[in-house]
Amino acid sequence: MIDWLHWLNLAGVAVCAISGTLMAYQKRMDGFGVVVLASVTAIGGGTLRDMVLDLPVFWVADTDYLYTTLIAAFIPVVWLRISPRFPFHYLLIADAFGLALFNVVGIEKTLANDGGMAVAIAMGTITGVFGGLLRDVICREVPLVLSGELYAITCIVGGFAYALCYHLALATELCAIISLATTVVLRLAAMRWHWQLPVFHSETT
Amino acid sequence: MIDWLHWLNLAGVAVCAISGTLMAYQKRMDGFGVVVLASVTAIGGGTLRDMVLDLPVFWVADTDYLYTTLIAAFIPVVWLRISPRFPFHYLLIADAFGLALFNVVGIEKTLANDGGMAVAIAMGTITGVFGGLLRDVICREVPLVLSGELYAITCIVGGFAYALCYHLALATELCAIISLATTVVLRLAAMRWHWQLPVFHSETT
Amino acid sequence: MIDWLHWLNLAGVAVCAISGTLMAYQKRMDGFGVVVLASVTAIGGGTLRDMVLDLPVFWVADTDYLYTTLIAAFIPVVWLRISPRFPFHYLLIADAFGLALFNVVGIEKTLANDGGMAVAIAMGTITGVFGGLLRDVICREVPLVLSGELYAITCIVGGFAYALCYHLALATELCAIISLATTVVLRLAAMRWHWQLPVFHSETT
Repeated sequence: MIDWLHWLNLAGVAVCAISGTLMAYQKRMDGFGVVVLASVTAIGGGTLRDMVLDLPVFWVADTDYLYTTLIAAFIPVVWLRISPRFPFHYLLIADAFGLALFNVVGIEKTLANDGGMAVAIAMGTITGVFGGLLRDVICREVPLVLSGELYAITCIVGGFAYALCYHLALATELCAIISLATTVVLRLAAMRWHWQLPVFHSETT
Repeated sequence: MIDWLHWLNLAGVAVCAISGTLMAYQKRMDGFGVVVLASVTAIGGGTLRDMVLDLPVFWVADTDYLYTTLIAAFIPVVWLRISPRFPFHYLLIADAFGLALFNVVGIEKTLANDGGMAVAIAMGTITGVFGGLLRDVICREVPLVLSGELYAITCIVGGFAYALCYHLALATELCAIISLATTVVLRLAAMRWHWQLPVFHSETT
Repeated sequence: MIDWLHWLNLAGVAVCAISGTLMAYQKRMDGFGVVVLASVTAIGGGTLRDMVLDLPVFWVADTDYLYTTLIAAFIPVVWLRISPRFPFHYLLIADAFGLALFNVVGIEKTLANDGGMAVAIAMGTITGVFGGLLRDVICREVPLVLSGELYAITCIVGGFAYALCYHLALATELCAIISLATTVVLRLAAMRWHWQLPVFHSETT
């Protein structure tokens, strides 16, 4: 179980590092911009989670994450030198998986360290969303999580799915898989049909 | 005393959450934008304070703060659906109280954990100001604390008032009340008469 | 050795505080803008480093840093009241020294607390770069580290120089001096000849 999470976490880190590099590409940054944006996107959320929970920060404790980030950051650099086209569409799908995975990792890490379920759901969302938020703030973009389609809400719903399974006393693996699936499906559906969650009346009302 | 601070702290969190929601309203964000901005404004300053002091983060240790933030965040949502007018004027007054209160909470928490007075004044200011700073940076606004009327300076003056009372060996409650009153009065006066603190000569000199 | 680093660290803090104040001057901020920007630039990087490594934050443990920041922040204020001209050229050279020094401090602090070399190089870069990154984000500038000349890359190269000396079992002082010199020379050369590190093909290719 721990190994399974570890590998999926590495995959999430790699996907987010690639998304950071692509943002640096769109902004025409230099080599260090790539490293900064890729790192911030990939490990920013988990770093904040571990600092708030007062745990050893994951990439300090296990440098695999650092190497994964750096290697993944340069995949799009090499790719874009060979071919000018990058499969952005697949990337968004992979990003949905990364979001869902970071969410589950955040929830499980909080529960394993005696945090309550409300804190765990908040931590899952922070882990999933904060890296991308930092990336957008540094690039002076309107943060995607704030104004676009359903994004972070999918983490929260995935968190509630986890809590439900947890209170039904399902196995941890099953809780994780159901939460993952809920977040991914909801996110993909939101992308496909441009779901939004308006809470204020529009000006015309 | 501890209970008294706890309730006032909850009130400060609620006021800041409401101010975050109103910013999200002005920026026409969706439901999650509301949750993010309200949370960041309400608990951002205290989170940084607790991480820097290496204490358990207050909303992880006591989930009351998390629930208060979420409930307060949706007060303006419901209010604005019923009536298009929101009492912004009262909110600014409440915000001044929130600022002063976070300041005192930051000072007392630092002193209670063996920090010196200089660190305590810095922590009080961080607790009061950092949440609003994050809110403005995420929304790509010019941070209010940097360019507007006297804002964070009122925290520092309130901190010096606390330090003065403390060195006169007054009771902790009295120190807190005098510091609170100093900050609130100074902030309200600065809003009323648009006090500023220029330190550079203007271009015309 | 420790004393030597302590004094150089204070010098680095002072230089960065001055650079923060000058940014506040260019943005025509008030007195608190000066304090905020100077503090963020001077102690932001080290604060993040200490929080990630879970060490006592340096300016909480030793308030000398706090006083140094405040005093240094007001040097340009006084200077600019006396003379409208500020030696910006010397400041950039001093800034290169500050960057190199923070880099070495970050590396040594990580190694002294049982971090690996990869983490140490990352921490050196974070210590050197993060304060200026925060300053630019708060001021809504395009962060210098992301789009300008070689900047953070010089920290990474300096970190590799340190690692090389370390593996050759040179004395700690020698490692520090060689790393410092590498970063400073590279940074000054990059400023002088506008070196960049493009990684993406430009549009015309």
